Amino acid sequence: MTRPYNIGMIGYGFMGRAHSNAYANVAHYFDIEYQPVLKAVCARDGEKAKAFAAKWGYESVETDWKKLLTRKDIDAVDICTPNNLHKEIAIAAAQAGKAILCEKPLAMNAAEGEEMCQAVEKAGVANIVWYNYRRVPAVTFAKQIIDSGKLGKIFHYRANFLQDWTISADLPQGGQGLWRLDVAAAGSGVTGDLLAHCIDTAIWLNGGIGSVSAMTETFIKERKHNLTGKVEKVGIDDACAFLCRFTNGSLGLFESTRYARGHKALYTLEINGEKASIKWDLHDLHRLSYFDHRDEGPYRGWRSIHVTDGDHPYMGKWWVPGLAVGYETSFVHQVADFLGGLAKGKPAGPTFRDALETQKICDAVLASAKSGAWTKVG
Amino acid sequence: MTRPYNIGMIGYGFMGRAHSNAYANVAHYFDIEYQPVLKAVCARDGEKAKAFAAKWGYESVETDWKKLLTRKDIDAVDICTPNNLHKEIAIAAAQAGKAILCEKPLAMNAAEGEEMCQAVEKAGVANIVWYNYRRVPAVTFAKQIIDSGKLGKIFHYRANFLQDWTISADLPQGGQGLWRLDVAAAGSGVTGDLLAHCIDTAIWLNGGIGSVSAMTETFIKERKHNLTGKVEKVGIDDACAFLCRFTNGSLGLFESTRYARGHKALYTLEINGEKASIKWDLHDLHRLSYFDHRDEGPYRGWRSIHVTDGDHPYMGKWWVPGLAVGYETSFVHQVADFLGGLAKGKPAGPTFRDALETQKICDAVLASAKSGAWTKVG
Amino acid sequence: MTRPYNIGMIGYGFMGRAHSNAYANVAHYFDIEYQPVLKAVCARDGEKAKAFAAKWGYESVETDWKKLLTRKDIDAVDICTPNNLHKEIAIAAAQAGKAILCEKPLAMNAAEGEEMCQAVEKAGVANIVWYNYRRVPAVTFAKQIIDSGKLGKIFHYRANFLQDWTISADLPQGGQGLWRLDVAAAGSGVTGDLLAHCIDTAIWLNGGIGSVSAMTETFIKERKHNLTGKVEKVGIDDACAFLCRFTNGSLGLFESTRYARGHKALYTLEINGEKASIKWDLHDLHRLSYFDHRDEGPYRGWRSIHVTDGDHPYMGKWWVPGLAVGYETSFVHQVADFLGGLAKGKPAGPTFRDALETQKICDAVLASAKSGAWTKVG
Amino acid sequence: MTRPYNIGMIGYGFMGRAHSNAYANVAHYFDIEYQPVLKAVCARDGEKAKAFAAKWGYESVETDWKKLLTRKDIDAVDICTPNNLHKEIAIAAAQAGKAILCEKPLAMNAAEGEEMCQAVEKAGVANIVWYNYRRVPAVTFAKQIIDSGKLGKIFHYRANFLQDWTISADLPQGGQGLWRLDVAAAGSGVTGDLLAHCIDTAIWLNGGIGSVSAMTETFIKERKHNLTGKVEKVGIDDACAFLCRFTNGSLGLFESTRYARGHKALYTLEINGEKASIKWDLHDLHRLSYFDHRDEGPYRGWRSIHVTDGDHPYMGKWWVPGLAVGYETSFVHQVADFLGGLAKGKPAGPTFRDALETQKICDAVLASAKSGAWTKVG
Repeated sequence: MTRPYNIGMIGYGFMGRAHSNAYANVAHYFDIEYQPVLKAVCARDGEKAKAFAAKWGYESVETDWKKLLTRKDIDAVDICTPNNLHKEIAIAAAQAGKAILCEKPLAMNAAEGEEMCQAVEKAGVANIVWYNYRRVPAVTFAKQIIDSGKLGKIFHYRANFLQDWTISADLPQGGQGLWRLDVAAAGSGVTGDLLAHCIDTAIWLNGGIGSVSAMTETFIKERKHNLTGKVEKVGIDDACAFLCRFTNGSLGLFESTRYARGHKALYTLEINGEKASIKWDLHDLHRLSYFDHRDEGPYRGWRSIHVTDGDHPYMGKWWVPGLAVGYETSFVHQVADFLGGLAKGKPAGPTFRDALETQKICDAVLASAKSGAWTKVG
Repeated sequence: MTRPYNIGMIGYGFMGRAHSNAYANVAHYFDIEYQPVLKAVCARDGEKAKAFAAKWGYESVETDWKKLLTRKDIDAVDICTPNNLHKEIAIAAAQAGKAILCEKPLAMNAAEGEEMCQAVEKAGVANIVWYNYRRVPAVTFAKQIIDSGKLGKIFHYRANFLQDWTISADLPQGGQGLWRLDVAAAGSGVTGDLLAHCIDTAIWLNGGIGSVSAMTETFIKERKHNLTGKVEKVGIDDACAFLCRFTNGSLGLFESTRYARGHKALYTLEINGEKASIKWDLHDLHRLSYFDHRDEGPYRGWRSIHVTDGDHPYMGKWWVPGLAVGYETSFVHQVADFLGGLAKGKPAGPTFRDALETQKICDAVLASAKSGAWTKVG
Repeated sequence: MTRPYNIGMIGYGFMGRAHSNAYANVAHYFDIEYQPVLKAVCARDGEKAKAFAAKWGYESVETDWKKLLTRKDIDAVDICTPNNLHKEIAIAAAQAGKAILCEKPLAMNAAEGEEMCQAVEKAGVANIVWYNYRRVPAVTFAKQIIDSGKLGKIFHYRANFLQDWTISADLPQGGQGLWRLDVAAAGSGVTGDLLAHCIDTAIWLNGGIGSVSAMTETFIKERKHNLTGKVEKVGIDDACAFLCRFTNGSLGLFESTRYARGHKALYTLEINGEKASIKWDLHDLHRLSYFDHRDEGPYRGWRSIHVTDGDHPYMGKWWVPGLAVGYETSFVHQVADFLGGLAKGKPAGPTFRDALETQKICDAVLASAKSGAWTKVG
Repeated sequence: MTRPYNIGMIGYGFMGRAHSNAYANVAHYFDIEYQPVLKAVCARDGEKAKAFAAKWGYESVETDWKKLLTRKDIDAVDICTPNNLHKEIAIAAAQAGKAILCEKPLAMNAAEGEEMCQAVEKAGVANIVWYNYRRVPAVTFAKQIIDSGKLGKIFHYRANFLQDWTISADLPQGGQGLWRLDVAAAGSGVTGDLLAHCIDTAIWLNGGIGSVSAMTETFIKERKHNLTGKVEKVGIDDACAFLCRFTNGSLGLFESTRYARGHKALYTLEINGEKASIKWDLHDLHRLSYFDHRDEGPYRGWRSIHVTDGDHPYMGKWWVPGLAVGYETSFVHQVADFLGGLAKGKPAGPTFRDALETQKICDAVLASAKSGAWTKVG
């Protein structure tokens, strides 16, 4: 027996589409008890909300998120707003007893995140943060490999998230589509937008981070601001890199930038263990590179595993071996796991509390970049 | 203004799912006048049809395709049955005035295909064949590049479709999921199943083929037949390779097999022109390799183009640069083009007539393999 | 104890350099009983021969190869002339009791090759043909893998040799540096120059070829001839492709061209067995791709083996793991094996007799391309 | 006219072989006025020195390097000893008026290096350090590209040197072949051995480094020492990573380790400029990846340039396009440039003074790793 699970979506941008696609398709591929229903979409601009609702089949439209939270027919709220609104909406949603699916990063900083955690925990509502890359099948497979012990003791973890879309000095900051460049809306630059993804995956795969030493840079110091119309100081970090030590003794190296010409969205990760190593790259997201030292000597080599077989995570639900799925499936998988977790009473992560850890690391990174000193997390 | 376009699906297997996904999602991403409605699914096994309808939201179920064709509320019929049923259903559907979306290959052979073409042309119904690879964005981009003249005179075309899933002698033939190994249902082996894809793309990109010299092999001579329960002679070709001459003077080399250990669904194509060359590989379907001799001497190299930008075919409808889409989107694009063609009165291909050309080449290939002689197409 | 082994080189072109490098360096890396001594170089143009001798340290110069053959201080003759001179020189050298290292292809055709084989066999002189690619470490490793039985029954063999240096219609034929385009000097085009390499490797790795069906093309029909100064018909094949059946039941597909824009010297080979597969590519000659179906299910993938370890063929003699050697080392290895074979009384291949098999296949390929019929080898 | 240039080699290990190969072959490929003559090899173990001399054709043997320096027939001394001997030998050689080719790193630390610089400058002898990777053709080509201005303003530089050969705790330290693990002989671990290479290339390509923040780790704390026979503390760094700021405003990220399972000698570098980017990887040393944003929009992609054409640096001297050369050629090129510099009176770098800059950065890196603070270079 299946039962409806009513979604109220706040926001309609890039992430609003990615999440809507997940709700609309999850039941086509996964056997789930809770069936998402696109009940309402909420945005200040009513016309845009209506158009979005028509496109995706939302049954109704709201222009005030507070109103949405009062509706009895909403089971869960999906927060796809800029980062600076996460806290207020999430706390109110928790108080209204709604489950919450919140875009990442959780908050503007760890202090906000802590408040949000306390709110959902106090309210006892289901909560999850959209760190979707955990559920790219090749990344989930990496988790299985690591948990199986195949890597042995871990020595190194490195991750990059490289883009090149803000190199032009003519690009403005702020407003629709560009709020990620506005520190007031985003809280930080690549640290919260991109490194947060790398960090979430890293602590999921390799455990906690103890301390960091970071460096940030803002290459373009001033940009026109779309909300004020004036040239204003850029407050975000264009690039951020940090060294760190994981609590398991391994060394970490992380870097993110939007000034790496030639890289569109190159999220790569690599983990080197005593016995085996793993590499992954978002640009070819269906492949996992795997090296196993236990292979017969002269036959050792990095294996390029095309993670599309029925015995790979999630892939038994899709097509046949050799046929890749896209970026958007990571969200489908997250919805499947979230709803499955509800049904089984075992919450799927990353919960707000899990995501707070990433927030603390981001805070430590930004603090270290400012102070120039190694900084403890948390 | 949009208007509903009612689909009646016949079959519920792998392709039934891929097509249903396309109908269900096309309007989320493309602005189309005709909105597909999943009106009915038809299959002999009523229980399975019901389950499929529930999964995908088909409004009704039929167990007799003849009955489906009599329904007034069906605008188009989608034929996802084994190949040996294409002709009968398609001709009846044409006579019933239904538009037809037919799985490939068009028919068991060119003679059947000719009958089908005449039927749809006489009835004046819209028709298309699911040679979906034309609409993988990187392949469509290849078409644009070739049409732009960037390659200059073409010298070589080569394509492979390599799989490895039938190497075990224990695999039976026939019946659900394995009808592709049964010559009575499939008509041929890799020639109609895999090379037909390569040929459709090839003639679309590089024009007609004049003559062929082919070789086929059936490595496992006998397999248990699921329908009879007995060990029976295998009638299909396990592997097929052919040389050919295109009418534009270029040389072609094609190969397909299900005995290439390590390749799941390695469809590759390469075209070498006087000034530039192109390569593509289904295993990394979002990439196109491009070499341009006009690049400055020492800077020449194969470019790995990540075909995910807004100015790449279809990609402006999906995510952002760097984020790949999956195999299933090729079907979404075909539905978008088919419906767009209806609206504009310009039929999108490949039509039955286009697909007949591929059938003729397949026939010539199989005839040449039998006779050992170069064989003219058509 | 080591002893000198006196080399008389005939020719001073590209291959003259590659072979001289091998003689000059083999003792630096390999422990060999016979130490090559660069005793004499012979060429009609005495000045060029002198310059070459000075560059490489040849002790003396000859301008008449017949004179060279009379010299008592020459143990072995290295034939680096155009193909049309191989027969005459080799037979005379055999009669003079010289060991012979002959460039490939052995001869202009199999009939010539047979005469040459009889001459060396009658004279009892050591003989080898410079099919150097057998001794690229990754290719030698492929041979070891196949001989170990790891691949199981072989289904498919395919090889390509693609170049793009003769696309310009302005390129002349004939004379110094361009004799490969002159059918009178070369005997054939890509068939003898490039496919002969692919065939030699193939029969070494996968055994004999029974019959072939081929196609050739000459894209540029006339070119200026450097020896006559006139525009003359081009007699060589610019491109050649053929299907074949190996005597072990596997299917073969071979292609070579000098019109594949973007490929400088792309010699690739792939062999698919029941249990494992192998791929190699001259452009990255130190890597071997290997797929083993016996790997644990979800961990299966093509391994990119960097063939630079001490336990890889020949590599223990060079640097350390990860450090690649170049094209020229294949000749060093051939000299090491040739001299080692002399010392042990076990001739290293490919002997003239081995190379005659390749010549027979080339003859069958060219005959099939002419007749359009499947043609038996030999 | 050519004239002899007499080499006295000190040491006979891995680098002794690589350098000897360069001296033995440079005149085969390059037109040089000075012809290296392998005059003497020097090592404490006379038997090993004799064997080495026989292998490579050294005319004489010495067992005391001081004796070697007194010989009138030696023009240049090549120092291939462990790092702790560089200073003493180099200063004595300078005082003896010999040209010096010194293995890298220049010295145990910058203070030693400064003394060495002063000695060679005072003596006015030619001097060079074997940072050979500058002269891998693809890396030299990268330098040409950067100097041409094609990259525009530089934003990022990153380099890795990853190995995996010391993961086993059973590996001892010290003595023949393992002195790199003994801090008394090596001065540091991966910092001086591997990062020094990365740094030399970086400052050559991208200019000076202002300050660094580093982290080091010694994963195996104790190892048996070959010289004492006892288990002793390991003094070297097994892994080192650092962040830095270049004086041109770009950000740098460097990492090296011998604990990256699966990487034999993975030296990679990447540089991102406003208009173009470059990547290189020692494992495929003949390829350079190049991305140019000025390419026509949808055609943009990373080009894999096979750096084997006649118009690529050094490659006109070797084979033909598509045929790769090996690791050892970088040393041949260095000798060619060193000797060419002598002839022209324009010293080829990196000179001792150039290499001192790398030493200063290494010192800053090690100091930062100790103090945990950002550290200025120099």
